[in-house]
Amino acid sequence: MGVTESVIEGRNAVIEAFRAAKTIDKLYILDGCQDGPMMTIRREAKKAGTLVRYVDRERLDQMSQTGKHQGVIATVAAYEYAEVEDILAAARTRNEEPFLVLLDNIEDPHNLGAIIRTANLAGAHGVIIPKNRAVGLTATVARTSAGALHYTPVARVTNLAKTMEDLKKEGLWFVCADMDGTSMYDLNLTGAIGLVIGNEGEGVGRLVKEKCDYVASIPMKGNIDSLNASVAAGVMAYEIVRQRLGK
Amino acid sequence: MGVTESVIEGRNAVIEAFRAAKTIDKLYILDGCQDGPMMTIRREAKKAGTLVRYVDRERLDQMSQTGKHQGVIATVAAYEYAEVEDILAAARTRNEEPFLVLLDNIEDPHNLGAIIRTANLAGAHGVIIPKNRAVGLTATVARTSAGALHYTPVARVTNLAKTMEDLKKEGLWFVCADMDGTSMYDLNLTGAIGLVIGNEGEGVGRLVKEKCDYVASIPMKGNIDSLNASVAAGVMAYEIVRQRLGK
Repeated sequence: MGVTESVIEGRNAVIEAFRAAKTIDKLYILDGCQDGPMMTIRREAKKAGTLVRYVDRERLDQMSQTGKHQGVIATVAAYEYAEVEDILAAARTRNEEPFLVLLDNIEDPHNLGAIIRTANLAGAHGVIIPKNRAVGLTATVARTSAGALHYTPVARVTNLAKTMEDLKKEGLWFVCADMDGTSMYDLNLTGAIGLVIGNEGEGVGRLVKEKCDYVASIPMKGNIDSLNASVAAGVMAYEIVRQRLGK
Repeated sequence: MGVTESVIEGRNAVIEAFRAAKTIDKLYILDGCQDGPMMTIRREAKKAGTLVRYVDRERLDQMSQTGKHQGVIATVAAYEYAEVEDILAAARTRNEEPFLVLLDNIEDPHNLGAIIRTANLAGAHGVIIPKNRAVGLTATVARTSAGALHYTPVARVTNLAKTMEDLKKEGLWFVCADMDGTSMYDLNLTGAIGLVIGNEGEGVGRLVKEKCDYVASIPMKGNIDSLNASVAAGVMAYEIVRQRLGK
């Protein structure tokens, strides 16, 4: 499976990419550019929940591979997304209780890559990320995953809370990490489980948190607020591993 | 305690900084520049184990704050280092068994920052890093530590293996994380402990590993080799927390 980042340049090419529902990760638009085609592109970006960055001409010239960006460059997902069903199928194939990692708007590609890497090694069957706002599978994510993206399926869903509801019907229950929870050592984390990790700055969103069966806290002895998101994911994932191993 | 990155520009200023034993984190030298003063700077950098990057004029112009870099810019430690003794004193003050985190050449500032953050929250009394090769306390590290650098002392030592020997006399014993070790769940990680985390690519060096009393492995179920270094540090540190809590 190849993992590369590709860019789409020029107004028509970008509009077409949106209309073909290609997975555009980021959109770079020349600051101050407001003509008709550009407004169309902005509308499409808004509809798709694509992150838009307004940059100067110099930046676009640097990014451009064709030299003909016409004021707009889009970067396209480096990797193909799986379906949630593929992840459940992976668990069935391995004859294991499903173990999923759900990310509520992780924004840093290094964190996403590190979490996919952790998911792979902790024996999780897949990772679910939301379409909006969060970072997608870019080349940086692929690189930071240290190869895990080749093995661990990542699905992207429109509404994480809705997906959790669907998965509850499949027998999964959900635990999220948050400061006000029960110590993770005092929760039973065996069984078919979805581990929910929140955004770097804001933690787990309200709607997603409401769908969680348990809120687990990682004991904190220090002076600051929270662990790095990928470290928190690692610590929680390995508490699940420990309990599954019966240690 | 302020945390800022400062740069030193120009040949004489950089030479003086080295001779004053200032903690220079990185040195940027104009590629191809080989005159007398520059060769002196290179020698000083080699002696101090400073990382040298050879870059083009454009890069230096961008980094320069004075516009007079003369082909050389050094970045200076954003933060003051503690002594190992300060860390042991912190443990005594809190009336706790010492818990130290030793990093054998972590190179990525994001990893170093995340590990200092983890050390703070896991209740470690301090972090020890080696002088050579490894990344120092730069502004990126400070930012990634999310404030932990204000609270958790970081000491920098010339020879990590030698420091471990000294610390053994203080009653510490050492555990490193490596693939060929005993499952961390089967080791007793309570007591006065130093947790050793290896380099991102190469793991723990031979000399340092020989000083470790135990080699612990994190159970790996996946297809790839290893966790991200800061995630591995988090998982191991929290296994120590769990055992210390008697959970």
